[in-house]
Amino acid sequence: MSQRVKVKQILSDDRANYEVTVKGWVRSFRNNQFIALNDGSTNNILQIVIDTENTDPATLKRITTGASISATGEIIPSMGKGQRVELKAKTLEILGDCDPEKYPLQLKNRPSLEYLREIAHLRFRTNTFGAIFRLRSSLAFAVHKFFNEKGFQYLHTPIITASDAEGAGEMFRVTTLDLKNPPRTENGEIDFKEDFFGRSTNLTVSGQLEGELGAMALSDIYTFGPTFRAENSNTARHLAEFWMIEPEMAFYELEDNMNLAEEFIKYVIKYALDNNREDLEFLASRLVEEEKQKPQAERSDMGLIEKLEFVVNNEFMRLTYTEAVSILKDSKPNKNKKFQYLIEGWGADLQSEHERYLVEKHFKKPVILTDYPKEIKSFYMKLNSDGKTVRAMDILFPGIGEIVGGSQREEDYDKLVSRMQEMGVPVEELSWFLDTRRFGTAPHAGFGLGFERLVLFVSGMTNIRDVIPFPRTPKNAEF
Amino acid sequence: MSQRVKVKQILSDDRANYEVTVKGWVRSFRNNQFIALNDGSTNNILQIVIDTENTDPATLKRITTGASISATGEIIPSMGKGQRVELKAKTLEILGDCDPEKYPLQLKNRPSLEYLREIAHLRFRTNTFGAIFRLRSSLAFAVHKFFNEKGFQYLHTPIITASDAEGAGEMFRVTTLDLKNPPRTENGEIDFKEDFFGRSTNLTVSGQLEGELGAMALSDIYTFGPTFRAENSNTARHLAEFWMIEPEMAFYELEDNMNLAEEFIKYVIKYALDNNREDLEFLASRLVEEEKQKPQAERSDMGLIEKLEFVVNNEFMRLTYTEAVSILKDSKPNKNKKFQYLIEGWGADLQSEHERYLVEKHFKKPVILTDYPKEIKSFYMKLNSDGKTVRAMDILFPGIGEIVGGSQREEDYDKLVSRMQEMGVPVEELSWFLDTRRFGTAPHAGFGLGFERLVLFVSGMTNIRDVIPFPRTPKNAEF
Repeated sequence: MSQRVKVKQILSDDRANYEVTVKGWVRSFRNNQFIALNDGSTNNILQIVIDTENTDPATLKRITTGASISATGEIIPSMGKGQRVELKAKTLEILGDCDPEKYPLQLKNRPSLEYLREIAHLRFRTNTFGAIFRLRSSLAFAVHKFFNEKGFQYLHTPIITASDAEGAGEMFRVTTLDLKNPPRTENGEIDFKEDFFGRSTNLTVSGQLEGELGAMALSDIYTFGPTFRAENSNTARHLAEFWMIEPEMAFYELEDNMNLAEEFIKYVIKYALDNNREDLEFLASRLVEEEKQKPQAERSDMGLIEKLEFVVNNEFMRLTYTEAVSILKDSKPNKNKKFQYLIEGWGADLQSEHERYLVEKHFKKPVILTDYPKEIKSFYMKLNSDGKTVRAMDILFPGIGEIVGGSQREEDYDKLVSRMQEMGVPVEELSWFLDTRRFGTAPHAGFGLGFERLVLFVSGMTNIRDVIPFPRTPKNAEF
Repeated sequence: MSQRVKVKQILSDDRANYEVTVKGWVRSFRNNQFIALNDGSTNNILQIVIDTENTDPATLKRITTGASISATGEIIPSMGKGQRVELKAKTLEILGDCDPEKYPLQLKNRPSLEYLREIAHLRFRTNTFGAIFRLRSSLAFAVHKFFNEKGFQYLHTPIITASDAEGAGEMFRVTTLDLKNPPRTENGEIDFKEDFFGRSTNLTVSGQLEGELGAMALSDIYTFGPTFRAENSNTARHLAEFWMIEPEMAFYELEDNMNLAEEFIKYVIKYALDNNREDLEFLASRLVEEEKQKPQAERSDMGLIEKLEFVVNNEFMRLTYTEAVSILKDSKPNKNKKFQYLIEGWGADLQSEHERYLVEKHFKKPVILTDYPKEIKSFYMKLNSDGKTVRAMDILFPGIGEIVGGSQREEDYDKLVSRMQEMGVPVEELSWFLDTRRFGTAPHAGFGLGFERLVLFVSGMTNIRDVIPFPRTPKNAEF
């Protein structure tokens, strides 16, 4: 028997008139003769032409949408429209039946994204989710490729941790204690000394602090792993479990950090444009269809691929928080009181509506905002000489909002400790973190990029639950 | 000012007589003139020669081990031994001091691996751990590169899960309930409906079951993410949190699975040999030093690099469990009752001592054991036609034991359900998993490789806590 060849390879091969075996799943079967076969290697199907007369009628009946088959025959030029070649089947074997009465993925009644979320274990089998998860995989590979080429070390920071990097996020507890009857100390508190790790532990909200430890020896590191937020936010942009990329670079200042982040985002998007063209074209046409439901004014100015090319080919707009506030204060929606939160002046925390105005209306391109008021940012960010602002940078994307948050870090021991005390961050507990500032401290910077938000942007999807295989959200941990 | 250049680039550059700026940490300072600078890009140091006479004595005093500096000057051919080029410093700036009285990493008293585990936040700064974590990063990249080249999709399976893939492992609970006063149902049980996900949830022990869902649509997928075991094992081979690679392939049978696993392991080791030669050479000499403490009989036959090349260049030995038991039964240690667990006959679960005998004494090479008794393997493995054995495969490595566990999966719905019932696996709860066998089932196979065991093997280290940045073990979740 010939070795199995994947559909992607056959379709990208210039040759014809050679024998292959293909294996995959039936997408459709028409005229009792033409099978559209998908094997997940590409969104495109291979047409299999069956010798109906010489095929057992019992077998023909079993060729239904979703059935798994193996077919051997010759790849020949196709007479039909829509494909260059097709497979003229010599033998056909049903590997796994698929009862059309029970299979939820019938082509006739196109299932909604909401319904597909309920059957997330099967949605990989649709064109939309095949394209999304091949795209996600490509983007993940591009992340590793980019940092590898730059000489960064991939660092696995811990998932279970006793520390809370942000000093803020709501966290998931990790425990092996018996909840029904946990051990207690003399004064009735839970006795975490008896817990698996001998202390209270949580799921990480960020690998940054541990990443800094690596950068202070290896120069350039990045993390790429799951992070967790126990926030009760049921929105289209939040997940309780998501993947984050956090590079951290010794001897980088804020501008180096911005340059790296911009180069990085453009690199991974370009990688997808170069390597997942068919998936992106499919998702682009899906988006056009979806937007037809919307009023004209709410539709995108650009098509998906046009939008991605625009991001790759144009410089991000860079400005300070102070400049942004001044633009927002004078903006029409502020003057006409259309913003839900009106911008009265300097110091206000920017809301999603303000970020979207800057990105989507004012600049019409990705924006990097820098030098935020220290009060609205984290303790570890480097204080500017004005004593009021910190060397933070947020990258804002159209339709997504914040896709990157980063900063130059405060490398001065005394200044860092004083910020920690001001903000109520426990100094003693983070003694190991402070050791980086005690012993051979150096300027350094880093950022975090929420991977799902990137996939959301590149895929043109609108709900973050549709770009991670098995979304974890309040009251939902199926599969 | 010239742009910063990394030490690795300078040392691999053929040129001399050009100006650079370097930044990094002082490893040593001798004769008040020669700085050994390490910046983490390589284990090798760049020698910086200082113009002592024209350097402020106060600055000279601050050049201590661990201090962070920036130096600009010309790269010139070196007169000294051990390096081709050196930097003749024109300017030198101390970026961060390092108090020699307090810094725990002094060259004079070489710290033990045990001590370095206690200061894991600083151990990246040693030659040993610099080499290990660059090697780990390279191996991780090679994993992605291998699967990307083969057309596999990288799938992020969930970390928080309500299911227990192995039906066995002890798991960590994930909860946001108030442990002091958890909500209870009427009959006094903990009311997990009130928990964040509306049910009882744990940290994943394997992404396999979710991986199979992906493979049944995308053909070839792999996972690479953290997995967890709440086992109270304080050994040199166990971690509570570790990274696992789990490929899953539609239309693969057991032999395809073995071929892929063998090719994969050889590929990533060869990648390290090609890309981390200096780190491996350093680790090889470290191992020689370490083994000098051991009696001759316990030392390795081969050096580290020789051992890695042997694995890359030789076929793994493949045999069935039944053949292995016959060899073990007739072996000297069995006859002389040297085994702690004597092999009486077919059906015995193999212990570490048996695996080591096969690999290290009998075959002296990696071994793939197949077709184990069904009683000692998982419910999802495909039953052989003998009705007694399953299509399992374990890959055993010298010094490590099991590095890969895999199998062809039972794709037949009825047979799978009957195995689940026999083994007490809840059928109803895994209904989503069974859907893969209901709708278009296909032969498929996969395996899991413990990433830290791979790093352990390639680095020649002996304790698994030394090959993950921040090990999580019973009573230990520092940093």
